[in-house]
Amino acid sequence: MACLHHAFQKVSAGVFLLVLWGEVVGDKLLVVPQDGSHWLSMKEIVELLSEKGHDIVVLVPEVNLLLKESKHYTRKIYPVPFDQEELQTRFRSFGNNHFAKRGLLSAAPMEYRNNMIVIDMFFISCQSLLGDSATLRFLRESKFDALFTDPALPCGVILAEYLGLPSVYLFRGFPCSLEHAISRSPNPVSYIPRCYTQFSDRMTFPQRVANYLVNYLETYIFYLLYSKYEDLASSILKRDVDLPTLYRKGSIWLLRYDFVFEYPRPVMPNMVFIGGTNCKEKGVLSQEFEAYVNASGEHGIVVFSLGSMVSEIPKNKAMEIADALGKIPQTVLWRYTGTPPPNLAKNTILVKWLPQNDLLGHPKARAFITHSGSHGIYEGICNGVPMVMLPLFGDQMDNAKRMETRGAGVTLNVLEMTSEDLANALKTVINDKSYKENIMRLSTLHKDRPIEPLDLAVFWIEFVMRHKGAPHLRAAAHDLTWYQYHSLDVIGFLLAIVLGTVFLTYKCCAFGCRKCFGKKGRVKKSHKSKTH
Amino acid sequence: MACLHHAFQKVSAGVFLLVLWGEVVGDKLLVVPQDGSHWLSMKEIVELLSEKGHDIVVLVPEVNLLLKESKHYTRKIYPVPFDQEELQTRFRSFGNNHFAKRGLLSAAPMEYRNNMIVIDMFFISCQSLLGDSATLRFLRESKFDALFTDPALPCGVILAEYLGLPSVYLFRGFPCSLEHAISRSPNPVSYIPRCYTQFSDRMTFPQRVANYLVNYLETYIFYLLYSKYEDLASSILKRDVDLPTLYRKGSIWLLRYDFVFEYPRPVMPNMVFIGGTNCKEKGVLSQEFEAYVNASGEHGIVVFSLGSMVSEIPKNKAMEIADALGKIPQTVLWRYTGTPPPNLAKNTILVKWLPQNDLLGHPKARAFITHSGSHGIYEGICNGVPMVMLPLFGDQMDNAKRMETRGAGVTLNVLEMTSEDLANALKTVINDKSYKENIMRLSTLHKDRPIEPLDLAVFWIEFVMRHKGAPHLRAAAHDLTWYQYHSLDVIGFLLAIVLGTVFLTYKCCAFGCRKCFGKKGRVKKSHKSKTH
Repeated sequence: MACLHHAFQKVSAGVFLLVLWGEVVGDKLLVVPQDGSHWLSMKEIVELLSEKGHDIVVLVPEVNLLLKESKHYTRKIYPVPFDQEELQTRFRSFGNNHFAKRGLLSAAPMEYRNNMIVIDMFFISCQSLLGDSATLRFLRESKFDALFTDPALPCGVILAEYLGLPSVYLFRGFPCSLEHAISRSPNPVSYIPRCYTQFSDRMTFPQRVANYLVNYLETYIFYLLYSKYEDLASSILKRDVDLPTLYRKGSIWLLRYDFVFEYPRPVMPNMVFIGGTNCKEKGVLSQEFEAYVNASGEHGIVVFSLGSMVSEIPKNKAMEIADALGKIPQTVLWRYTGTPPPNLAKNTILVKWLPQNDLLGHPKARAFITHSGSHGIYEGICNGVPMVMLPLFGDQMDNAKRMETRGAGVTLNVLEMTSEDLANALKTVINDKSYKENIMRLSTLHKDRPIEPLDLAVFWIEFVMRHKGAPHLRAAAHDLTWYQYHSLDVIGFLLAIVLGTVFLTYKCCAFGCRKCFGKKGRVKKSHKSKTH
Repeated sequence: MACLHHAFQKVSAGVFLLVLWGEVVGDKLLVVPQDGSHWLSMKEIVELLSEKGHDIVVLVPEVNLLLKESKHYTRKIYPVPFDQEELQTRFRSFGNNHFAKRGLLSAAPMEYRNNMIVIDMFFISCQSLLGDSATLRFLRESKFDALFTDPALPCGVILAEYLGLPSVYLFRGFPCSLEHAISRSPNPVSYIPRCYTQFSDRMTFPQRVANYLVNYLETYIFYLLYSKYEDLASSILKRDVDLPTLYRKGSIWLLRYDFVFEYPRPVMPNMVFIGGTNCKEKGVLSQEFEAYVNASGEHGIVVFSLGSMVSEIPKNKAMEIADALGKIPQTVLWRYTGTPPPNLAKNTILVKWLPQNDLLGHPKARAFITHSGSHGIYEGICNGVPMVMLPLFGDQMDNAKRMETRGAGVTLNVLEMTSEDLANALKTVINDKSYKENIMRLSTLHKDRPIEPLDLAVFWIEFVMRHKGAPHLRAAAHDLTWYQYHSLDVIGFLLAIVLGTVFLTYKCCAFGCRKCFGKKGRVKKSHKSKTH
């Protein structure tokens, strides 16, 4: 401890200062998580907060997927009107529906309907929570210092208002542009691609036209997702509620990206970028996986996972994939829980689970076949492994585009690709040195940061607990109406003055002219009449 | 060292990681400073870089004010066609002219002419540097890794382009909005006050109208200041040069403010906020000052300085001030190099120099009379001392407004204030507890940060040296024309389509109608003629 103290004194010699840490223990934090893969990032932050001595309560529906017990937090369980089977059926349908064939026009409605399978369930869960008086009483009496939530769905946001707590949001990017729309961060449509477009930040003219039009759909998405929650909020808060106004009360946005991955764009001072919190140090491989890796020889391994949300792949597609994997010399470790495809090649090993980050961190990792969820992408960047990306839903198509434009991977459409396409893509990212060089460059930039993102996340949550919010980071833009924000009233006023002045000048001139020439005319006339 | 190493391993337990530090020694940095108070912040960063083992060359005109020798850097001296006397005369005139009486309409031209006294001299200095072949040869042959400059005037920016070096800018805010205009950071006029307006971020309608109009003057200010430099740049680079394009190549903007002081607003990812680098730990007072402070008794002290640029105050004004200072029970330590006013009270001690930060850090400091330069303001915030602000030029009026809106100080117009005004302002900030509370709140927020600003500055300069720039932080906005950026071409195109469609529909309908009704008409007619 004395040693640590000594180290801290070296601030001026280049060691970063540990501001106030250690002093702040015992604050009480309420966590309102989002079940599913979103929870994985939040869990890491919550665990670190717990290690620092904070008292953490996680609000958990009695039926859930990943919100399990832990020594790091107390779970406050609330009842929901569905059972484990329904939950699993919904998640399974959600995951597997991504492999259904879809046409150009039917793609968007199918994607929307598929998302709603789980989103509707979350709404029911929220409704149940906000209607459970025992849980609400417990929350009111617990005297929390702050609330930490995933704002993709607004249950935590409503609860923060109900309990009068300052809040911190942890967010990746769906619904599209939520963080920018809410925090009044300018979002120029000319170089910031809207989500689902799969455009880069350098768009052609037709792409910019499309991006401009897609931009207007975002308001509609917000309406579809959130209008029901407004009624829920109004009922519990006993007043008319405008959901964006509630959202704007969030003190800090912890955003799960950085600008090695995301395109540079304007941001607001209460946005903190913590992309790569899950880029942990490589752990030791179990004997099973160590043996696979060692046996792979000079060709090394390929790691293949489509994430925790996808458990099955249609048989035909699985056989196509298995065929492709058999065409490369690398050993492929494939996380797959469905029925093994009958044509599985000798180099392909199916596993129910794999230590993804540790395998990617192994020097023998040659490529990573991923659905390009944000966690996987960052593990790929962190470990510098070129990717073949098979995006399925949500932000995954856009994530893949970002990696592709940086030359760090190849994207395939999982529904349309052939076995040949996948084999070629793998050979390309493994044999074309530029992919490895590019991902290594990204990896170096990503890891060269003044402070670890996980520590930054913990710092800002503690900051909000210490200061009961962060009002000094709230832009005055929030207090303006939309027309004031865009200075439309000022422009109107100035325009009125200019037009008024022009009109008056014209009238004066016209009047003057009439006076002069009119008189002259009359004079001439009278003169004429006199001379006659 | 082993101890330090042990401390670093504790990252996951909450200690911030020291990324790559220590590895990067021996990079070569060229520093192109701005003489005068701007140098004070830059010097601290340069010294810390030198302590970390970097080889630093500071480009210094042979005649200068503050760019003195140091063990921390090598000075590369270039000739200038003026002598020390002219330099001092210019700086003295610049400082003292602020006390000249000015009318409402003459204020702006007088301020402009006064600034040009020193700015013209800097231009001559830059001209001399860029024309000195020996210095240029030395710079070309020195193989620097990066260039660190104050971009308020563009000499360093031009040199970075000439030498093909990535650059880091250190900037406070003059010329107004330069950092935002150059880095394409949106700058909504509805809540971001333009400089010299002395508006806050919450403006009335008339203020928003004025702010909107002042906004257009900024382009004119840029033109006045920089047009001459464009010729200089074109001549040395042997091609037509657009200065904003050169400026945009800067990798990182180190901005000398934070959002405890500045109003929250949109920013870009290559902006790093390092307000308060000069907020050092309190040093030990010399015997002389210790004696003054101890003798002040229960009333404590007031620290008074108008900064390094002002050496004299007109006799009448000095007497008015001296009279006011005599009306408070505190001991006043006044940094003043002019002729002592004859009516100086017993409680007022004139000194040629004072350890400002150490005095403000003393528990007996009750108030700080300052010209509200950014260094002084941050020393006031850092030490939590309420301020009476007598702004003189540049950003000082706007700095004062920011402190005033936060209830941390009172602003007076030094030209118009009476002795009574100053005495009352001092009594207010000392006796009204809210001022102390507010400045203490700001102080706590300012100092509660995940990493020390000086370390952050050093980190980003080293980052640019390590990676030869930071292109991943450069927004694609820079590659768009102004009309593309604002999507005017897209809007025009869509408008043309809409209008075209409306026009065509109208024409088709008209044609159809003519066909139908025309025919009908003719049919009727022929029918008529037949019946007849």
